[in-house]
Amino acid sequence: MKNKAITSRDEDFAQWYTDVVKAAKLADYSNVKGCIVFEPNGYAIWEKMQSVLDKKFKMLGHQNVSMPALIPESLLKKEAELIEGFAPEGAWVTEGGGKVLEEKLMFRPTSETLFSDYYANKVSSYKDLPLLYNQWCNVMRWEKETRPFLRTREFLWQEGHTVHATAEEAEAETLQMLEVYRDFFENYLAIPVITGKKTEKEKFAGAEYTCTVEALMYNGVSLQSATSHYFGQKFSKAYGIQFLNKENKLENAYQTSWGCTTRMIGGLIMVHSDDNGLVLPPKIAPRQVVFVPIGKGEDLQVVTALCEEMNKKLHEADIISFVDKSDRSPGFKYAEHEVNGIPVRVEIGKRDLDGGFITLARRDTRERVQVDKNCDIVATVQNLLNDIQQNLYNTAKKRADEKTYTAITLDEVRDIMYNRPGFVKTMWCGDEACELAMKEIRGTKSRCILENHPHIGEKCVVCGKPAKHLVVWGIQY
Amino acid sequence: MKNKAITSRDEDFAQWYTDVVKAAKLADYSNVKGCIVFEPNGYAIWEKMQSVLDKKFKMLGHQNVSMPALIPESLLKKEAELIEGFAPEGAWVTEGGGKVLEEKLMFRPTSETLFSDYYANKVSSYKDLPLLYNQWCNVMRWEKETRPFLRTREFLWQEGHTVHATAEEAEAETLQMLEVYRDFFENYLAIPVITGKKTEKEKFAGAEYTCTVEALMYNGVSLQSATSHYFGQKFSKAYGIQFLNKENKLENAYQTSWGCTTRMIGGLIMVHSDDNGLVLPPKIAPRQVVFVPIGKGEDLQVVTALCEEMNKKLHEADIISFVDKSDRSPGFKYAEHEVNGIPVRVEIGKRDLDGGFITLARRDTRERVQVDKNCDIVATVQNLLNDIQQNLYNTAKKRADEKTYTAITLDEVRDIMYNRPGFVKTMWCGDEACELAMKEIRGTKSRCILENHPHIGEKCVVCGKPAKHLVVWGIQY
Repeated sequence: MKNKAITSRDEDFAQWYTDVVKAAKLADYSNVKGCIVFEPNGYAIWEKMQSVLDKKFKMLGHQNVSMPALIPESLLKKEAELIEGFAPEGAWVTEGGGKVLEEKLMFRPTSETLFSDYYANKVSSYKDLPLLYNQWCNVMRWEKETRPFLRTREFLWQEGHTVHATAEEAEAETLQMLEVYRDFFENYLAIPVITGKKTEKEKFAGAEYTCTVEALMYNGVSLQSATSHYFGQKFSKAYGIQFLNKENKLENAYQTSWGCTTRMIGGLIMVHSDDNGLVLPPKIAPRQVVFVPIGKGEDLQVVTALCEEMNKKLHEADIISFVDKSDRSPGFKYAEHEVNGIPVRVEIGKRDLDGGFITLARRDTRERVQVDKNCDIVATVQNLLNDIQQNLYNTAKKRADEKTYTAITLDEVRDIMYNRPGFVKTMWCGDEACELAMKEIRGTKSRCILENHPHIGEKCVVCGKPAKHLVVWGIQY
Repeated sequence: MKNKAITSRDEDFAQWYTDVVKAAKLADYSNVKGCIVFEPNGYAIWEKMQSVLDKKFKMLGHQNVSMPALIPESLLKKEAELIEGFAPEGAWVTEGGGKVLEEKLMFRPTSETLFSDYYANKVSSYKDLPLLYNQWCNVMRWEKETRPFLRTREFLWQEGHTVHATAEEAEAETLQMLEVYRDFFENYLAIPVITGKKTEKEKFAGAEYTCTVEALMYNGVSLQSATSHYFGQKFSKAYGIQFLNKENKLENAYQTSWGCTTRMIGGLIMVHSDDNGLVLPPKIAPRQVVFVPIGKGEDLQVVTALCEEMNKKLHEADIISFVDKSDRSPGFKYAEHEVNGIPVRVEIGKRDLDGGFITLARRDTRERVQVDKNCDIVATVQNLLNDIQQNLYNTAKKRADEKTYTAITLDEVRDIMYNRPGFVKTMWCGDEACELAMKEIRGTKSRCILENHPHIGEKCVVCGKPAKHLVVWGIQY
């Protein structure tokens, strides 16, 4: 039985995506062009992501702050590459308090400028370093085409900004945060990823280099999912962040930034969900287990009491469960909890109870199993949640592996990208011209460079010259 | 011994306030006019406030969402009073993506318009109601004069927006949330408050009525600290939120909104802090206890081990404590933790240990007491934290009571407001002219109306006509 409100993902992936977002009540279009309303079901996923990541950040010594949302034009212009990169997408406040402003302010597209300006006033000695700050906030980029979660004018994110006394320490921070993201994707979101450096062309405006987390969606399109940048001294020179080092000499500080966004919700959908709606890995599901009592009158009272008893046991084990006691039919409830992606549903009816069992339905495979009504419910549910988490990862990993190809010639790349898109690994000479040639093939872009590959020196897939890098390419969201 | 970086609050309260904000590293001025940087110590207080309130909201059935930050002018104009009220403070985005926009967008000063527009599409039957949504976000009001936390162009807040099938239910929600705020102020922030309805002149633009939480600062100035509004059908008529009621008739829905802001941090400072810096009630302190090990070499190792052992016990009891193992002198540490307002400091030195005791210093009274080194540290610290929480409330309550006056004549009001400002209770006829006459006295404004007073009918303090209300007045921030 298929959810009729949802188009098949194999028929029309784009429509399927929109249907799932709508059916699971994750987001709604708003009357503000290019912006969405994050509805309770969608926002709750973001809150869960925040709670996991925020704890990890803090355990690594980071502290949260809040910078202004508006950036004066003059402050933006201090670092040339950044303003060039973001000016085309800028949203500008030009009027305030009933007057045209003397200087216009950009709604932050990212906050390197504000953090750097702040750090310049706070840092004077190596003893002040490092400063490890992060903020959770909204940002604005005036995109032309938008899709819920994947690309919207306003989105929510976190941006970490750190400043260090040495390049080594700042580079270690860049890699450490990349690893935090990788771990989060694989072990919480159950999404296998590839990590590596961006090419010069694809790196963040103003960065020395950008590290990226790249994931492959169900349809073989790749999604840039989180980034971690090493800035070296670029911003510290532009904004004057100087300190007396241990040799008592004035030196420019070394910086990083790293971020991930509400786009991750889009990634979750496109990796795990199916034609019946949302599928969520238990570790990131805002609600992990629902109990549905079945029956009428006195029978219903008996099974509801049992549901509540088991529910309480799960709560004591920190499992997020609830009892659906609403006045709707079991079939209606099943459909709703399924489309909403609640990982485990426990069905308890009087007749089953008399037969000595209860039924557990898992959302990922949609299998229903009967278990002894006197089983250890905590262990049984916890095992099932663990199994779902692992199964979602395994399924995504198997698919990503099947859709990850190696190509020696452009014809091979073309064949792959048009007929069975995915990640394509090729050798590359390092020239931007060859990157642009790849883009001719259905918009294929480099995702990242894989380090230390044994085949360096073999031929570039485009020009045939000796290759400097092994690169992963993909069609991108 | 007094902190030299901080002006005495009895000498110059405004300068004292600024000094405390700076010395405790709560916020810094930014290069964005009228906006501040919330530094780690200040933002951590906000996070703590959020965690307490968010849990309370959710336990009452509210869910979090996120609406766009920008509101098209046409959408704003649908409700005349709201746009009139907020237009003078509006910040407008007029350029985006390199073009002048066809329609300008206001950076949200508040989000009644967006929520109402959204609800209009979501509500069609009484079965859809109530919808109980809240968002934590930034808002922008183009103020002319700004002060950290108290009044800044951009600030952080939560805004709850609910929609109901009956007026009774919506009014009950308005009062329920007022009570949530009152409880939060008195039992978490340790700030005694007065609650009641705003006068017509002081109510929120577009509300049927506004309930408010009013607090008195150390210097006798009052601070509007949280508000809860009943809208009736005003917005639902302007934005077309209609539903089929139980009688199957089309009816406009009933709405509320309620909010509190980062201004509460300013209130905390102005009620509890002193000439030595920040003082925080334990229930809202991001860090409640600091252990300072004292000594050198082997001695230091012994006392540090004991600090860590006790620290672990406090953690197990959910007390937020840490050991300051930094390489700085005890005196330096004491001063820093004191200015930062950490409620309890535990000092452990080898000599004291040999004498059989350790020392506890409480931030509120700055008293230091010696306790047996073998005491139940969890119970001892917990008792002290409870005592500090209660003492801060009692001190603030005693002061507020002393500064709450009753006046029969304008001369009395004048004498009070110029010589010993505070809350002044008077009878009032209900005419705006009399409210404006009060404002002539050092800007005195009505704080709120107290309900059901036995003296209704006595003379208005201004005009002498029969009074309709007992009103609390104050000089405001």
